[in-house]
Amino acid sequence: MNVSENLTGQSRVVIERVSPELDGGLYPIKAVPGDVIAVEADIFADGHDYLTAVLLFKHIDDANWTETAMAPIVNDRWGASFVVEKQGKYLYTLESWVDHPGSWQHEVHLKVADGQRITSELLAGAQYLDGMLVRAGGVAEQKKGGKGKGAKTKSEPISESADAKAIREMAALFRDESRYNEAVSVAESDQFTFYASRYPERQHVTRYSHELGVEVDRARAGFSNWYCLFPRSASRVEGRHGTFKDVEALLPRISGMGFDVLYLPPIHPIGTAHRKGKNNSVICQPGEPGVPYGIGSPEGGHDAIHPELGTVEEFKHLIAIAANYGMEVAMDLAIQCSPDHPWAKEHPEWFKKRPDGTIQYAENPPKKYQDIYPVYFETDDWQNLWEELKRVLIVWASWGVRIVRVDNPHTKPFGFWEWVIAEVKKEFPDMLFLAEAFTRPKVMQELGKRGFAQSYTYYTWRNTKYELEQYMMELTQTEMKYYYRPNFWPTTHDINPYSLQGGHEPQFLIRYFLAATLVSNYGIYGPSFELMEHIPFPNKEEYLNSEKYEIRLWDWDRTNKLTYLITLVNRIRHENAALQITNNIQFCPVNDDAIMAYLKIKDANRLLIVVNTDAYSRRAGVVQVPIWQLGIGPEQYYQVHDLLTGAYYNWQGEHNYVELDPYSLPMHLFRIEV
Amino acid sequence: MNVSENLTGQSRVVIERVSPELDGGLYPIKAVPGDVIAVEADIFADGHDYLTAVLLFKHIDDANWTETAMAPIVNDRWGASFVVEKQGKYLYTLESWVDHPGSWQHEVHLKVADGQRITSELLAGAQYLDGMLVRAGGVAEQKKGGKGKGAKTKSEPISESADAKAIREMAALFRDESRYNEAVSVAESDQFTFYASRYPERQHVTRYSHELGVEVDRARAGFSNWYCLFPRSASRVEGRHGTFKDVEALLPRISGMGFDVLYLPPIHPIGTAHRKGKNNSVICQPGEPGVPYGIGSPEGGHDAIHPELGTVEEFKHLIAIAANYGMEVAMDLAIQCSPDHPWAKEHPEWFKKRPDGTIQYAENPPKKYQDIYPVYFETDDWQNLWEELKRVLIVWASWGVRIVRVDNPHTKPFGFWEWVIAEVKKEFPDMLFLAEAFTRPKVMQELGKRGFAQSYTYYTWRNTKYELEQYMMELTQTEMKYYYRPNFWPTTHDINPYSLQGGHEPQFLIRYFLAATLVSNYGIYGPSFELMEHIPFPNKEEYLNSEKYEIRLWDWDRTNKLTYLITLVNRIRHENAALQITNNIQFCPVNDDAIMAYLKIKDANRLLIVVNTDAYSRRAGVVQVPIWQLGIGPEQYYQVHDLLTGAYYNWQGEHNYVELDPYSLPMHLFRIEV
Repeated sequence: MNVSENLTGQSRVVIERVSPELDGGLYPIKAVPGDVIAVEADIFADGHDYLTAVLLFKHIDDANWTETAMAPIVNDRWGASFVVEKQGKYLYTLESWVDHPGSWQHEVHLKVADGQRITSELLAGAQYLDGMLVRAGGVAEQKKGGKGKGAKTKSEPISESADAKAIREMAALFRDESRYNEAVSVAESDQFTFYASRYPERQHVTRYSHELGVEVDRARAGFSNWYCLFPRSASRVEGRHGTFKDVEALLPRISGMGFDVLYLPPIHPIGTAHRKGKNNSVICQPGEPGVPYGIGSPEGGHDAIHPELGTVEEFKHLIAIAANYGMEVAMDLAIQCSPDHPWAKEHPEWFKKRPDGTIQYAENPPKKYQDIYPVYFETDDWQNLWEELKRVLIVWASWGVRIVRVDNPHTKPFGFWEWVIAEVKKEFPDMLFLAEAFTRPKVMQELGKRGFAQSYTYYTWRNTKYELEQYMMELTQTEMKYYYRPNFWPTTHDINPYSLQGGHEPQFLIRYFLAATLVSNYGIYGPSFELMEHIPFPNKEEYLNSEKYEIRLWDWDRTNKLTYLITLVNRIRHENAALQITNNIQFCPVNDDAIMAYLKIKDANRLLIVVNTDAYSRRAGVVQVPIWQLGIGPEQYYQVHDLLTGAYYNWQGEHNYVELDPYSLPMHLFRIEV
Repeated sequence: MNVSENLTGQSRVVIERVSPELDGGLYPIKAVPGDVIAVEADIFADGHDYLTAVLLFKHIDDANWTETAMAPIVNDRWGASFVVEKQGKYLYTLESWVDHPGSWQHEVHLKVADGQRITSELLAGAQYLDGMLVRAGGVAEQKKGGKGKGAKTKSEPISESADAKAIREMAALFRDESRYNEAVSVAESDQFTFYASRYPERQHVTRYSHELGVEVDRARAGFSNWYCLFPRSASRVEGRHGTFKDVEALLPRISGMGFDVLYLPPIHPIGTAHRKGKNNSVICQPGEPGVPYGIGSPEGGHDAIHPELGTVEEFKHLIAIAANYGMEVAMDLAIQCSPDHPWAKEHPEWFKKRPDGTIQYAENPPKKYQDIYPVYFETDDWQNLWEELKRVLIVWASWGVRIVRVDNPHTKPFGFWEWVIAEVKKEFPDMLFLAEAFTRPKVMQELGKRGFAQSYTYYTWRNTKYELEQYMMELTQTEMKYYYRPNFWPTTHDINPYSLQGGHEPQFLIRYFLAATLVSNYGIYGPSFELMEHIPFPNKEEYLNSEKYEIRLWDWDRTNKLTYLITLVNRIRHENAALQITNNIQFCPVNDDAIMAYLKIKDANRLLIVVNTDAYSRRAGVVQVPIWQLGIGPEQYYQVHDLLTGAYYNWQGEHNYVELDPYSLPMHLFRIEV
């Protein structure tokens, strides 16, 4: 490098290891309006000079950056934070420079304390003040061989600000040897510090090499309570296909239980070619309804509605009625087709061909799924395919849908998701996508980075205290906390986990309660879950007689201990801000290997949750509460109020006894009240 | 983004979290010729397809990349390695793509195992083979409605390679239904795998976004034994100024002790303005020699030699003679000037002015150093300043110097070092720079990243077992291992550490031995250190009567227990490859809080070092040897041979007793001999 080509040789500050930063700034972190974004970085220069560092941020619609001062933490680590007020994308970056006046004042302190005379230093200080004066809108004085006395009033403009006036007077004072003692005291004063930081020199600034992003979604991205149902099973009459109208009739029950997202598996026309029967049988009896995931028939594809459920208008009506109950309707995007799907005829190039020219059906060797054509994303016509899929989502949005659960997103290219989510959000910024991916950790993480607002998790298979604590640490204490919003499901219509196949009521209570209190987004597959449906298809983590393959007639009026708990916990979730955030979890030690205890704190709302994860035994232990952190003295009494039972307990000190009987109620949900 | 602008929509593979990678590829990692660079990355795609990933690397002088296949490790982490054969800069990056033939073969296995007939799959396989044939330089057959039988010989070119012939025959076999069983067996064979991986499809390749660097220095960057002396104290006659000739006379002793780098503090003319006297006195008596760091006089500056030491020719002679002893001479770059330095007159703009127009002398308030002008790197004439400093280094290189120890590099801009080191190495690739920075951790790290081949460390202040183990973990188990080559010094001419001020011989032995066995680069300040000089300037970590301020007359003939140990350990270091690497250290548990044990392994050279860090008490404990890792069975006997004493011990199993008396010998240096 020719040195003359380098224009930054005087910039001495280094800015490194900025946090949060995902993959060198490639992906934004996530937030909801009102979130505080705490930014840290290593910031340092050669030598011993003082530095100034600022955090710059702006909403992408803002013309200008807002600046906030950073403060040193320890060992050249600096920090500052900003609040994302509104939806949309924010950017942030950092700047820093050597703070010469600050270094100067520090040296003045040391020399004065040492009893040195600082006449020469005061003249240097006056030069810094001359610079501040200009930046404060004042007019610099004529140079007078280092003495400004007498000339002051002549050059002072009438419109000069109060700051400029004060700075001008300070500079004159520093140059006035007859007022030496006064000058020294001002040089050491906060007044000098104040003007130096208000009108900084800002020379040879180092700006961080990346602008980093924050994707701010609407509040529901951060706090949601999902309820999944198959609308065709919403009928209360045996043998009658459920309709959107039937679903509307269930809304009082579902919203009464406290749910705010109603998620429906695919509602499109179902193909008949190779249609599967009851329990996934390859033989389909006449009259069997087929699998909603076998999408597409002569009646239409992903942009059409299955006629037996209702019309587009009736679907929009359901959305409107749900809104009256404070609920949103989420649709299910399964990018796959029945052989009867219109695309199979109109766009055969979007499917992979076999050597004989026929379209390749889905396989998971040795298993074959002749009823499904996977979409071939490596097609040379991929651009039209992407545009068509975007069009489908825009159609859904035009119906009023603002939440989409995506089926198996991990079998479609990451680049497609990044593109389509960004595209749809340009037109409908409220749109939220939930990734249904149960696959390898890095694939799930990547989907989160590429734009999914929420993601399925391994919660369904994390049962012991150790597993759950480790998993929560991974979600909330690693980089994942910045971009991965976990949504916990105890069961789904695809998964009847072994841990619940026994149908043991306390286990259902525990699995529900953990999902609803460990994280701020969770869902249940109803009414299967709350009615404790549990008989498996033999030797599988699936349901016998799954409504994926048949219409079920449910007893929608039944209530039980679990529905009672769900209703209560959802009300508590809505009333307690601490449960509306995931990353605020903090585990407390308990001397029992099944009892978990965790704090969830948001401002004054302080919850302590205690769960016995052993659904078969009464467990007792001592919870260690970090009272120092709660501002509670070691001798001080404090009340913990169980919001589930209404009971109050008087606790004292760090260590407090708990005892939980799964056959009674295996959990406490304490509010700490001092 | 308009989808049509995106050209990579079919590239499905993601490459992330590449290691090693420093600051997003901004800085190279470091190596010496022969080092193995192990590269890892997260590599994955959507879906369940097999992937192929390759590591690409090249020396910067090479026209083409060399490729090596990566292998999956676990959970989508892949790895491969390459050897840096020669000096200079290497680049590496990664590529990956979906391996369709590999996925195909995997599915064939599953279907065949399930008893399915795979006629259609074989035709698909034949299509993959057609592609391989073209890539193997063969000519694709005419399409014959899926049957190639009979046409083979006609289109086969005479010059076709053996591979192309084999692939062509395989494709024909796959299309020949009459040989179905044979075709299935070939489809499942390693033969198919072999050709598929030799002639890969390589479609829609993802290439990692950065090319990452490896700075390969010559071997001495990784293994060196430094000896520092003041040449003016090399005389054996009281009152006579030492010369380069005197230094030449000491070479047999120093090289006899096993050192290979002779480092000399500045050897330039010394200024007289404000010259400091004995013990850093501000009053200099007539005849006092001054401080070598007060560089510059009418006789010259950084490109001149102090006349009392000798001429440039005599210095070059010293370098030549040292080379005969296998030693290099390292110079000391202290970028600062005496007020008498030629630059102060010729380039006053390179120094900071005080308000009265005089040049600002060095300060560390409240302390003043009127004998030193710091160079002002924020000068507007910084480009000429940088060029001049480069010129100085080029002059030194022209004398034959290839190692430079830099004094206080942390008070000069990082950008300058990055530039000047790269510039000098362009002309003199052998040049190595050692950073003498005892300052904040991140500043020291940054100097390493910017190009210093070796760096001073906090070793000088790490005394207890806990401190030393923690520090070694930081140096060898964090990112620092890639770019920071620690050089351990028990003392320097600036630091007489409190731990040695007692002059306790066992403490000197321990501090020496740890430096020489924990890391591969170390140095001593002699003969002060080996003669166990220890009287401090009162209440400081400095020497009384330091030769920084006066000429010392040393007894260069004295030997003692420490000189014996130094000579022995340096010989062992040269003979045992395991001591010539730093990052191979591995601590073994010992049930004593003062006894440290560590393995150093390089191929068959396996050392176990045991040190009692308590210089005052006999300590005993049990060392836990990871015999499983050494391939030693639990019942098996093995010999540990103490290279210091010659003693052999027969050990068995993991746990073995050691006992170390500091008054006898507080260390073992075992070679493990099975």
